[in-house]
Amino acid sequence: MKNFVAMAIKVENQVLKILDQTKLPEEEVWISIDCPTDMEMAIKQLKVRGAPLIGVAAGISLAQYAEKGVSEGEYMAAAKLLRESRPTAVNLMYVIDFLTRFESTYNVEEVISKAEKVFAEDVELCQKIANNGSAFVEDGDNILTHCNTGGLATAGMGTALGVIQKAYQQGKNIHVYVDETRPLLQGGRLTTWELTQLGIPYTLICDNMAASLMAQGRVQKVFVGADRIAVNGDFANKIGTYGLAVSCQYHKVPFYCVAPYTTIDFDCRSGAEIPIELRSENEVRGVRDYIWAPEQCEVYNPAFDVTPNSLVSAWIFDKRVYTNDDLIKEGGLCSQ
Amino acid sequence: MKNFVAMAIKVENQVLKILDQTKLPEEEVWISIDCPTDMEMAIKQLKVRGAPLIGVAAGISLAQYAEKGVSEGEYMAAAKLLRESRPTAVNLMYVIDFLTRFESTYNVEEVISKAEKVFAEDVELCQKIANNGSAFVEDGDNILTHCNTGGLATAGMGTALGVIQKAYQQGKNIHVYVDETRPLLQGGRLTTWELTQLGIPYTLICDNMAASLMAQGRVQKVFVGADRIAVNGDFANKIGTYGLAVSCQYHKVPFYCVAPYTTIDFDCRSGAEIPIELRSENEVRGVRDYIWAPEQCEVYNPAFDVTPNSLVSAWIFDKRVYTNDDLIKEGGLCSQ
Repeated sequence: MKNFVAMAIKVENQVLKILDQTKLPEEEVWISIDCPTDMEMAIKQLKVRGAPLIGVAAGISLAQYAEKGVSEGEYMAAAKLLRESRPTAVNLMYVIDFLTRFESTYNVEEVISKAEKVFAEDVELCQKIANNGSAFVEDGDNILTHCNTGGLATAGMGTALGVIQKAYQQGKNIHVYVDETRPLLQGGRLTTWELTQLGIPYTLICDNMAASLMAQGRVQKVFVGADRIAVNGDFANKIGTYGLAVSCQYHKVPFYCVAPYTTIDFDCRSGAEIPIELRSENEVRGVRDYIWAPEQCEVYNPAFDVTPNSLVSAWIFDKRVYTNDDLIKEGGLCSQ
Repeated sequence: MKNFVAMAIKVENQVLKILDQTKLPEEEVWISIDCPTDMEMAIKQLKVRGAPLIGVAAGISLAQYAEKGVSEGEYMAAAKLLRESRPTAVNLMYVIDFLTRFESTYNVEEVISKAEKVFAEDVELCQKIANNGSAFVEDGDNILTHCNTGGLATAGMGTALGVIQKAYQQGKNIHVYVDETRPLLQGGRLTTWELTQLGIPYTLICDNMAASLMAQGRVQKVFVGADRIAVNGDFANKIGTYGLAVSCQYHKVPFYCVAPYTTIDFDCRSGAEIPIELRSENEVRGVRDYIWAPEQCEVYNPAFDVTPNSLVSAWIFDKRVYTNDDLIKEGGLCSQ
């Protein structure tokens, strides 16, 4: 397999390494992934995260496994394991399905070439998304974002955060409000880390401060990513996205969903059909190993929520931008 | 001065002690408060917190200072110090003003008797509030609350949490969703601790999960406290309250503001006039001494936000319940 380098994943001389995102921003630790079981654990533990990156990473791990000369049965078992490692993000399923549907029969070269294609395409998709999305950013905008949707979440420059980065590169004078994104603090730990590296001005807030900022007229636009988009435009994204969308509607702040077109699940008619992953109770009881809530307390910890299409100002894809009107006029996302 | 015992404050043989709320729920540490400067620090550091309790505690500390035989000048200087220790909560100002307006001249007995009266009245107010509010709770309700408004926030059984406790004591089958309330986690640390002690079933959530629960129809009512209420019904409360109110309106979930009638600031015509305390950046960068965000990152950390009257279903006071209709028909909160 070729060498690759991205912000949080790389292949050097056949060795796949990932940047352990649970340790950021304090430590930058790269860990080797030797087999699909390692990757499955890394995905479950969120060492690798971000819907697009999970797909890319799982694809590379699976292709390396094929390259080792395993049997078709072993390959298919590993594919199944990886496909089920996170239930909400559709990109992962899309990549695994792509790597397990062969032109004729099981074929290592085809697997490797497809995994390489997935990586390269993700980089290119991010560029296209950033180009399409940055047109919405105006000089002087304060942009609010949730979770992490940058280079740490993709093989390229990111989705929602890629849009922000692109607008900044275009010389637009912008400032970013970063939702810390409880419980796992992808905003407070990862987006802050990326924006610091990029030199883009930002202010960190707790998730529950966003509405107050909007009431003060201090947020002009909100850009978020997506883990799965139903054909009607409802979409699942990191928990907290939905409340933000509700607040945007109340304050008349434009709310954009930014993702690769492949985030659309054409088997999924509406948000009600998207499975929502429930995660461990200790994630809410504290942060990492530091627990402050009573040990045995009941916890509700959905990793995602679903935002209905009615709250979305536009869907920014690599292909093009879909507005509500587009969806209505053209039969929308079903038209592929 | 008489002996007093409440959940988080007590006077025993002239010694004033407070339960250090920054250490809950891990440790129950009582600390002695020897003078108003000690109390000022305890208030600023949130060792004592909750708008009603801050008022009660400052009053007792000031009265003990008078009891020591200080001069009127020293007394008045201490009163000023305490009055300014937190800028948003109005109860504190109300109590200090009450203790510095004398029938004729400066008088130690009058101070002590007034401080004792403030304590006793707070206990009684909580009972009345709980009685008035519990009428809104129905069997089977899932009630969501924010921050901590219980015995730790008052001299009595609490405001919003007092309502919940009363409804539970009345035999109503209820369940509470507890917002963890970032950044200082008064929900995750304090409300969980109180509800555990009371045996009331609850589930801890991150603040950004509330909207998703409402979308699923899993929240029937929201009860929150208030730190200051303007005469038009706008009110300041712990940051995150406003976003919750917006979400309640979108989901048609009743949203109740629960507080002593003395929380109304008759000098304040609307929420725009309420000063909002900004607190330290490290509160958002982490929890206590455990920091995860980049060290130097910009932070916005308002301790409170303002909820407009249009989002409030009713104001539950000790005096009686005010609805929007009451406010309109009777000239409402201005009528005192």
